[in-house]
Amino acid sequence: MQSIKKLKPLAAIVGAGRTKFGELWYKNPEELLTEAGLKAMESVEYGLKRKDIQACYFGSFLYQVTNKLALIPGYMSRELGMNIPMSNTEAACGSGGSALYNACLGIRSGEYDVALVGGFEKMTDRAGKIIDDLMFAGDPHEFDAGYTFAGLYASMMARYIHDYGDDHGSGDRCREALALVACKNHHHAVGNEYAQFRREFTVADVLNSPLVADPIRMLHCSPVSDGAVALVVVSPDVAKKYTDTPIYVVGSQQATDDVSICSRESLTGIKATRLAMEKVLKETGMTMRDIHLAEVHDCFTIEEIFFLEDSGFCKKGDGWKTVYDSYESFKGSKHIPYVNGDKELVVNAGGGLKADGHPVGATGVRQVYECFKQLRNEAGGNQVDRELNVALCHNIGGTGGIATVHILVRELQ
Amino acid sequence: MQSIKKLKPLAAIVGAGRTKFGELWYKNPEELLTEAGLKAMESVEYGLKRKDIQACYFGSFLYQVTNKLALIPGYMSRELGMNIPMSNTEAACGSGGSALYNACLGIRSGEYDVALVGGFEKMTDRAGKIIDDLMFAGDPHEFDAGYTFAGLYASMMARYIHDYGDDHGSGDRCREALALVACKNHHHAVGNEYAQFRREFTVADVLNSPLVADPIRMLHCSPVSDGAVALVVVSPDVAKKYTDTPIYVVGSQQATDDVSICSRESLTGIKATRLAMEKVLKETGMTMRDIHLAEVHDCFTIEEIFFLEDSGFCKKGDGWKTVYDSYESFKGSKHIPYVNGDKELVVNAGGGLKADGHPVGATGVRQVYECFKQLRNEAGGNQVDRELNVALCHNIGGTGGIATVHILVRELQ
Repeated sequence: MQSIKKLKPLAAIVGAGRTKFGELWYKNPEELLTEAGLKAMESVEYGLKRKDIQACYFGSFLYQVTNKLALIPGYMSRELGMNIPMSNTEAACGSGGSALYNACLGIRSGEYDVALVGGFEKMTDRAGKIIDDLMFAGDPHEFDAGYTFAGLYASMMARYIHDYGDDHGSGDRCREALALVACKNHHHAVGNEYAQFRREFTVADVLNSPLVADPIRMLHCSPVSDGAVALVVVSPDVAKKYTDTPIYVVGSQQATDDVSICSRESLTGIKATRLAMEKVLKETGMTMRDIHLAEVHDCFTIEEIFFLEDSGFCKKGDGWKTVYDSYESFKGSKHIPYVNGDKELVVNAGGGLKADGHPVGATGVRQVYECFKQLRNEAGGNQVDRELNVALCHNIGGTGGIATVHILVRELQ
Repeated sequence: MQSIKKLKPLAAIVGAGRTKFGELWYKNPEELLTEAGLKAMESVEYGLKRKDIQACYFGSFLYQVTNKLALIPGYMSRELGMNIPMSNTEAACGSGGSALYNACLGIRSGEYDVALVGGFEKMTDRAGKIIDDLMFAGDPHEFDAGYTFAGLYASMMARYIHDYGDDHGSGDRCREALALVACKNHHHAVGNEYAQFRREFTVADVLNSPLVADPIRMLHCSPVSDGAVALVVVSPDVAKKYTDTPIYVVGSQQATDDVSICSRESLTGIKATRLAMEKVLKETGMTMRDIHLAEVHDCFTIEEIFFLEDSGFCKKGDGWKTVYDSYESFKGSKHIPYVNGDKELVVNAGGGLKADGHPVGATGVRQVYECFKQLRNEAGGNQVDRELNVALCHNIGGTGGIATVHILVRELQ
């Protein structure tokens, strides 16, 4: 890594707030977003008045279909009592990361010093219909071919087991590793007061849970959730006005790829992740060895293993072995890091999409919330007991049509 | 006006392309956007390779509901064969303006020098259902109260006639002025080869057209349309590399307001327009006297009159008189400017939303396309026969939940 002292921060985070994730029947989406936004503002150490906010960036996915509303800037203008510029970006499950990405560009433009960034989704009202809705994150041709969204990931998981799991015959240990990702993330969520699910599961629980789309079972899947998260993002120049411990954004990158898995180069990895990771590591001069904590897009457990490989933490095909061996070594620890040689990485300290919950548009912002709290040593009972100075957030949309990566640091020197 | 020489350009436009607007049954939305994007790239004077594009900003409104798709970055990654960062903003009818607004911030951040900006909408497939869909640009409570989207504007138009039209008794001349906006814009569209409607209408045609929501009749309304428009937007520093005649963006502002008309301060104007206009005139040091051409959000004819007043071109309540008197003075001219004292302003030179068409997400970008062509003297048979150096684009979302304003100039000195 280049000396972190030389890193030029792009933006700084000085406040963060979130709702609980889960089935939040009694609140409208704009109320959830407002709750998170006000909590983020109130969390600012030296105070932040509503009039200090100069712009808002929101991310959400299915609000038109699931909530019959659009023009989120108009709703949030009313809820927050503000007439400032507001933008809402939609990038399926990557909507939250997209909002932060655009906020960082807005801050860097010099037009604003202080922005509110929020992600939200209210999905549970739709009950079973959400399964069809989620296919909007795929290609209509995939839908017409009979795919569900889980089915798309099932194709990728099956291919991964086929290509890389069979050095153990049946692929059983690979399948066990794919279950262990869920066990680990549920284990991490037990201490997270906002998480949708705070209970442990065993490998047997996962492998005996109902089949969704072979080989994906229910406990390989992230849940359908409601929730919202918000951040106060400011120019690095003014950060110390708001707190003694800003968390700096030093890398912010995005890449895209074909919306459909049919014409991808490979089913066993996400090209957009690989490209965004290459760019963000180049931008910061870091390697994966420099990252202490990663919040990773584990919409299905295979996706967390893809990340380990796409990011360069493991070699292609070795991700599942890393999961397996790391779990064995650290079973029972408060947090279970992934270990590869001398590289150690805590992944999804708060439970990830899998256990913390996956209100789609909120997820990319929730990942940053988690890193912000962990890096500031404010994660309470769920604080990671390790040195944490550099964290990475990895948010993807659909089956990998978009990937956004952010790198956050506590200490610049 | 301050010397334009002192203006600091925020970005420069070096290419523009669009599809025809209308009922485009045989093309998917992503195909329309690709067609516009490729045309924009091909229009660049000194050439632009696909790999020169570093980021894309798209705007669209109802694609999820009307076209059953989301994650536009994934579609456009495939269509354009690019893996670069892409963002899609939704701000109802203001989605296109929002995309350009964010692109300008992206360019100003220094992260990119060259961006593609696109807006699109494919609405006609939905036939009658689009009337319900469009209420997503309002508040669900307004929908539940029985409003259509036209109904919301009808409330505003009725109130305007009541408050400001009655110095002539019945308000008949005010009603005539509200029809003349449509006559003028249809007149302007006759020479526009891309326009959805290229025919003239008389005041009698408008006032005898079917009643949609009293006092709004069919010919007060912009149509339901398909179409896409794209721009190549670059850093001012590199603009001359691409063309000898870049069009500079010197002002880019946005403001928001309550999504619902129920709790607005006034029904007879758009607060978000007023705020965005105040900011953009301050940003550029201009007054409305400096603007030669304005592309204005005339979703319903009342909205064009609101703009004249909200922008400060006319005093509150005088907009309809300006329309009436100007039309009388310039009847038969190729373009009919609005005149107020020594201020003259050509509005909607290509026909506006009313006659050029209103594929919702494309509109804010189409306005910039029109100004780009007019300022470069490339509007062909529809070129305005006046000195044109400064143009303004005004795009709003919903009934005024958001407003985006851009000021463009040809010559900086």
